[in-house]
Amino acid sequence: MHITQHTDYALRVLIHLAANAHRLATIQEISDCFDISRSHLMKVVNQLVRLGFVEGVRGKGGGLRLARAPVDIGIGDVIRQMEAGFALVECQGEDSRCLLTRDCRLKGVLDRALAAFLAELDRSTLADLIGPAERKALQLLHRRAPDSPSLQPVGAPSDQ
Amino acid sequence: MHITQHTDYALRVLIHLAANAHRLATIQEISDCFDISRSHLMKVVNQLVRLGFVEGVRGKGGGLRLARAPVDIGIGDVIRQMEAGFALVECQGEDSRCLLTRDCRLKGVLDRALAAFLAELDRSTLADLIGPAERKALQLLHRRAPDSPSLQPVGAPSDQ
Repeated sequence: MHITQHTDYALRVLIHLAANAHRLATIQEISDCFDISRSHLMKVVNQLVRLGFVEGVRGKGGGLRLARAPVDIGIGDVIRQMEAGFALVECQGEDSRCLLTRDCRLKGVLDRALAAFLAELDRSTLADLIGPAERKALQLLHRRAPDSPSLQPVGAPSDQ
Repeated sequence: MHITQHTDYALRVLIHLAANAHRLATIQEISDCFDISRSHLMKVVNQLVRLGFVEGVRGKGGGLRLARAPVDIGIGDVIRQMEAGFALVECQGEDSRCLLTRDCRLKGVLDRALAAFLAELDRSTLADLIGPAERKALQLLHRRAPDSPSLQPVGAPSDQ
């Protein structure tokens, strides 16, 4: 059982942006930090922008930042919106080919389990994922990432 | 997000055997009913036998049956045991390559969500999935399945 790699990467991007909220981050830097291919990352970031979790700042010194405060980004919401269709098994999808679908009770049991899973995730926001240790680790990673571009700080430059 | 096809098939096999508990079922019959490849089904059934959910009866008129009463087969147990490693995201696995793993709190949040998911599944047994409608549907499917072998009844022949 797993969530898609696409959603996994989305969570990492959001964690990175939350831990570096005092400045803009670039695709290249996130790609280096997490060892994710740049092209896959672009797709993830585009979806995060479309969904209103992230915003891009164009131009020289531009980059990415969160579009909302971490406390306003629920982990359940991110997973719900990033996962394309929440079908744990084939019979939960719209194109079920299982001949039992109409009469089977498995779907109901799995639906309730999924609701419990998401309800638990709804109790956490991005802010809960970013403590002092995470912030420090991410900032260290950024310094270690090769070819990290020099970024124009936004927000509070004194945090740098 | 989804459970593996392997586990999905395991649940269908168990549902089929529970609905046809008055007789032995064959791999061929289950393969026909659910449109699952015979070779994939063999792997699923072998694991179900190894885990003690199903038992095989050899010889002419042999076949498969549940090794325990449906009320003693918890859906949470089946999913827990069939899923190879319960890593929702890469960082929950043993071979995590994410550089954040040690400090990141995402793992804890996902662990709690997974526990809620399984706790909900633990409230249902195979017996809850098999009502009169499911039993009837499965028996109809069996009659419709092409080339279904004629099976020797075991248990209560008067149920046939």
